[in-house]
Amino acid sequence: MRATYMYGAGDVRVIDVPDPAIQQPTDALVRVVRACVCGSDLHPYHAMPETPEGVPMGHEFVGVVEEVGREVATLAKGDFVIAPFAYSDGTCRFCREGLHTSCAQGGFFSAAQAEALRVPFADGTLVKAPVGENSGLLPSLLTLSDVLGTGYHAAVKGGVDERTTVTVIGDGAVGLLAVLSARRLGAQQIILMGRHKTRTDLGREFGATDVVAERGEEGIAKVRDLTGGHGSHVVLEAVGHFPAYEQAYGIVRPGGVISRVGVPQYEEAPIGFGSLFGGNITLTGGPAPARAYIEELLPAVLDGTIEPGKVFDQTVDLGGVPDGYRSMDNRDALKVLVQP
Amino acid sequence: MRATYMYGAGDVRVIDVPDPAIQQPTDALVRVVRACVCGSDLHPYHAMPETPEGVPMGHEFVGVVEEVGREVATLAKGDFVIAPFAYSDGTCRFCREGLHTSCAQGGFFSAAQAEALRVPFADGTLVKAPVGENSGLLPSLLTLSDVLGTGYHAAVKGGVDERTTVTVIGDGAVGLLAVLSARRLGAQQIILMGRHKTRTDLGREFGATDVVAERGEEGIAKVRDLTGGHGSHVVLEAVGHFPAYEQAYGIVRPGGVISRVGVPQYEEAPIGFGSLFGGNITLTGGPAPARAYIEELLPAVLDGTIEPGKVFDQTVDLGGVPDGYRSMDNRDALKVLVQP
Repeated sequence: MRATYMYGAGDVRVIDVPDPAIQQPTDALVRVVRACVCGSDLHPYHAMPETPEGVPMGHEFVGVVEEVGREVATLAKGDFVIAPFAYSDGTCRFCREGLHTSCAQGGFFSAAQAEALRVPFADGTLVKAPVGENSGLLPSLLTLSDVLGTGYHAAVKGGVDERTTVTVIGDGAVGLLAVLSARRLGAQQIILMGRHKTRTDLGREFGATDVVAERGEEGIAKVRDLTGGHGSHVVLEAVGHFPAYEQAYGIVRPGGVISRVGVPQYEEAPIGFGSLFGGNITLTGGPAPARAYIEELLPAVLDGTIEPGKVFDQTVDLGGVPDGYRSMDNRDALKVLVQP
Repeated sequence: MRATYMYGAGDVRVIDVPDPAIQQPTDALVRVVRACVCGSDLHPYHAMPETPEGVPMGHEFVGVVEEVGREVATLAKGDFVIAPFAYSDGTCRFCREGLHTSCAQGGFFSAAQAEALRVPFADGTLVKAPVGENSGLLPSLLTLSDVLGTGYHAAVKGGVDERTTVTVIGDGAVGLLAVLSARRLGAQQIILMGRHKTRTDLGREFGATDVVAERGEEGIAKVRDLTGGHGSHVVLEAVGHFPAYEQAYGIVRPGGVISRVGVPQYEEAPIGFGSLFGGNITLTGGPAPARAYIEELLPAVLDGTIEPGKVFDQTVDLGGVPDGYRSMDNRDALKVLVQP
């Protein structure tokens, strides 16, 4: 079958690889119906050292079950399924608590920009959806794999409710779906910090009440103005670069929360008296346990209450995946859908 | 009157200064009945540059109102009062939300190791207590000024309840009262990390179920052993030095909370994928709004349910304050009570 591999910064290729096969009795084989390129795929696209053997890419997909291992109890050939970006056993204490990304047996998918892939712990990982593989809902269902769950995780961990002002840093797919999530959790004022008008326009459609295009000190001043001088109760940081973190503690209100879901591209950062401690700021977030949110968000996707699939603005076939990376990297595309 | 000033590292003197006087109509003058030396006073005691004019010291006190400004409505001469370590107007949005340390008109006391002092925003700041100035409850009431409120703040911000395992880093007065607070909030397993047996014994009396004397990697391994290999749901960091923070993220459980109340003696620290983000760890805490907790905790002090005053193990008069600093610095004393 064909699958996407990365061989170094900027070097994405679609190659022929052996078909995946059941290895464990808890595995399933899934034929990929839709996958996509993630903002986090751009980090290695910028920085990955040359790697002759290549690395398989892609962690978001929906598809159809082709085969199941003998211990798989809840799935059968032909089921349409949504996969979160991390697989997990579904039975350990962390999975039962909804922190599937800390499952001791779990891991992250990394071969979904392909025709098919093997899914470990299929019962714990996959969620069935009552749709056909030509459904118009596929793009929105695919966001449950990662970007919707990640935006929602930011908002949930940030404690967003109808009493909190919310500022979202970043107008990528996760930032825009953090806006949608904050709105869904009742926030009345949602400030979106982003500079790309087509994206921030979609942010307004998703619920943003204000858009701040400025960055750094100027952006901080603007958000403070918009929040009565006090700052934002909750800041959802959906970028992962250090300046976004600096912006976050610049605009958060005393007693407020910074919730990060952009994978940090830094390790050390200010957390002392002048940044977090003095104002009793809480810093939270992490890799979203997307699996934990699928059942909760699925009905609203199925009945059209929310349309997170609007973040996809370009579609490619498998051969077009390298172009998809280029488009996202150039910001010609917000998010690229892959139809193998 | 006589008051305590610091002139540089290790240089504490009790000197004659002008009597304080009402300056604003919202002020009160309070005669100090009990004050004390704080662990945080030891930071300048170690590091303060030589300062010829000196800096007044002390931020914890209980006392008797001697005089009130003409706008003070709730207090009168003769009232016995407890002061939180920060003054605050009691009326702004932050005070109403219980975050008195972020009151825009507020500030920190810094002249309480003295015979008397001026209290700004007396109505907002001071809390009356129905005791005489010879009450045996004075040491416990004095802990409401700072160390009990601070330990309690750590536990509250950490989300301690009957389902959380708790580890307290630090066997100073705040750490021990964080143990007491965690117990009060229902925690069943409370691990105290500290090396001074007389202190950890008091910690056991306050509710610690386990004591870990080891530090660094060894201490981390011990706490992991005691928590089924998973780490502690909540870590209360009551030290403020960088190694305590490193210890905190080493022992916290995925999805858990580090709540800091030790004033950080560092600004930059690890918060990336390997320390906080990967495990969805929440970092919270800050200067305790002690004022917010006084009414809540006062009844338990008055009826003897809790005896936080046991942290005081040495008493000095005003002239003995420099000796008190020395004793605490040498760890001969856990916490020094000052009886002017």
